[in-house]
Amino acid sequence: MDRPVRIVLVGLGNLGRRFVGILAERGDAVRRRFGLDLRLVGAADSRGTAYDPRGLDARLVERTKRDGLSISGYPSAGVPDRPALDLVREAEADLLCEASPVNLRKGGEPGLSCVRAALARGLHVVTSNKGPIVLAYAELTALAQKKRVSLRFDGTVAGGLPALYLGMRDLRGAVISRIEAVPNLSTGLFLDRLAAGTSWDEALALGHAEGQLEEDPAWDLEGWDAAAKLAILANAVLGVPARLEDIARTGIGGISPSDVRKEARRGRTIRLLALADRKEEGTYALSVAPCALPRDHPLGRLGPHGMGIVYWTDLFGRIAATIEESDPLPSAATLLRDILDIYVAADGPGRASPD
Amino acid sequence: MDRPVRIVLVGLGNLGRRFVGILAERGDAVRRRFGLDLRLVGAADSRGTAYDPRGLDARLVERTKRDGLSISGYPSAGVPDRPALDLVREAEADLLCEASPVNLRKGGEPGLSCVRAALARGLHVVTSNKGPIVLAYAELTALAQKKRVSLRFDGTVAGGLPALYLGMRDLRGAVISRIEAVPNLSTGLFLDRLAAGTSWDEALALGHAEGQLEEDPAWDLEGWDAAAKLAILANAVLGVPARLEDIARTGIGGISPSDVRKEARRGRTIRLLALADRKEEGTYALSVAPCALPRDHPLGRLGPHGMGIVYWTDLFGRIAATIEESDPLPSAATLLRDILDIYVAADGPGRASPD
Repeated sequence: MDRPVRIVLVGLGNLGRRFVGILAERGDAVRRRFGLDLRLVGAADSRGTAYDPRGLDARLVERTKRDGLSISGYPSAGVPDRPALDLVREAEADLLCEASPVNLRKGGEPGLSCVRAALARGLHVVTSNKGPIVLAYAELTALAQKKRVSLRFDGTVAGGLPALYLGMRDLRGAVISRIEAVPNLSTGLFLDRLAAGTSWDEALALGHAEGQLEEDPAWDLEGWDAAAKLAILANAVLGVPARLEDIARTGIGGISPSDVRKEARRGRTIRLLALADRKEEGTYALSVAPCALPRDHPLGRLGPHGMGIVYWTDLFGRIAATIEESDPLPSAATLLRDILDIYVAADGPGRASPD
Repeated sequence: MDRPVRIVLVGLGNLGRRFVGILAERGDAVRRRFGLDLRLVGAADSRGTAYDPRGLDARLVERTKRDGLSISGYPSAGVPDRPALDLVREAEADLLCEASPVNLRKGGEPGLSCVRAALARGLHVVTSNKGPIVLAYAELTALAQKKRVSLRFDGTVAGGLPALYLGMRDLRGAVISRIEAVPNLSTGLFLDRLAAGTSWDEALALGHAEGQLEEDPAWDLEGWDAAAKLAILANAVLGVPARLEDIARTGIGGISPSDVRKEARRGRTIRLLALADRKEEGTYALSVAPCALPRDHPLGRLGPHGMGIVYWTDLFGRIAATIEESDPLPSAATLLRDILDIYVAADGPGRASPD
């Protein structure tokens, strides 16, 4: 008998929609391999919700969103204008999947309230949304522990790379003396365009046209995104209660195409580097700034679609991990990673047969 | 109240001794952070055992072995000539830590019997010994599942790099189309020596003198070690019941210093590469062979103390991970990683304060 996991999904943008696509495509394989019945019972976008305790049809949800429609038009289960928070509060569910976009200016809402409400009700939470984790890490992890549920957020740092699990879990027991990370995709792509001869204005226009930049490009280019990710690494991996304002932040705005090309000729790649450096007294200096990385640096050969992280440790030597991802699928798949991590033991049933 | 974890350690060579050193040095930090009381109650080397249900003094055990003495001389708790298997069968314990050297020619013994006996008694097992896992993966994982205990063996592949956890856990749910790994340290060091102008005979002599080669150098140089690691990856990550003899194996014996230098001039590094390549029908072609890696390959810039792995997946893009380790400490620390993984949830108590 498969174990049902009743999922409420909040946020049906690029990431949420792709996650629904993964549920549709991989649901059977997950059932066979892990004995889990991942059942989407509720979903919310900014225009309303849909809820059916017997389960929504993931393929239909995916198609609805691909066609640019609201989930609130879902046959018989859709409710226009119903707030996501109401769904989270009332649905019979086991797990909230929070995939709404980060919004730090609005206090991380509506994501933060949804995460808080779900944990308070005893639901597990997986989220790709940096907002709630940056703004309320201590509160939310304490609430999850009190309610004996899991809060997972692997997708908040470096897309599909398990940068957080690596640090939080695989390096447990070690002292981390330094973290270097290139956790943001669009700045790398932007810098590589400058290196290829594109002007700032052209690169900006391209970034917007191809959807690589947020509406406010400063979020990426001025290093806010990288700083948010570093704050999460500091809290979750280093145990340091860092806030966004504790991070010395320099964006790539001051970098000219000729700077990038000059470094490239010297065999170095400029990347926006997030850095945590351990001081003698055990605190960490946290910063985000552009850095010219030599080619033999573990992050020195990241392509335009590459991200990565390096951990310097006392017990485990120096460990680096990188990812090449050319679309948001790996980021969406972290939600599946987090769910499986909650329900399947590390040495639990493996791949019965690859398919 | 701290939760006691009563450990029996079999194998007090380089790895086992260092693990005891980690227990001595980190025990207090682990207690503070995770509420676990890691207590070494029994230990065995080839000359006997020591057992004290109240706990052995890890510092004394470490010093005894560093001085080249047998654990059987441990004050009041030592028993000369007592087989490790007797200790495993009789000790009041929660977990077996099996760190004896791999011995495939002797059927993986004495490690295999100890692992089997421990699981059968309902003890968790963590091991850095490839032998039992290569020879009896299916039997041992089934036994662990039946007894509802954990069997962990992260240290069997690529030293301190969590190559197995990455594949078994973080990539769960994805289809892996290809694995490339440089999981063996001594062949890389050997090849780099050839590149630097050392002759085969000199490199062999150096490898033995500095303890980088096994007594039988063929184990490393003819690719048996890499093949054993690939077999473990195939079983644990790919779900393929591969045996050592299923792996096409070419060692580095046929490589001359001039070959290595010729490739180096072309910007390529020769490494003994373990490869799993997915065929259309879902099976994997498994091979170990020397390969000239270009510098922009994720494993193309491994130093003489580097190992690494690359996973090609459908959901998570291409993920690479590498480690630089200059001594066996990271490999020994995988035993701590495995233990913490059994007893601490991924989002469990973090680093209360870095120390």
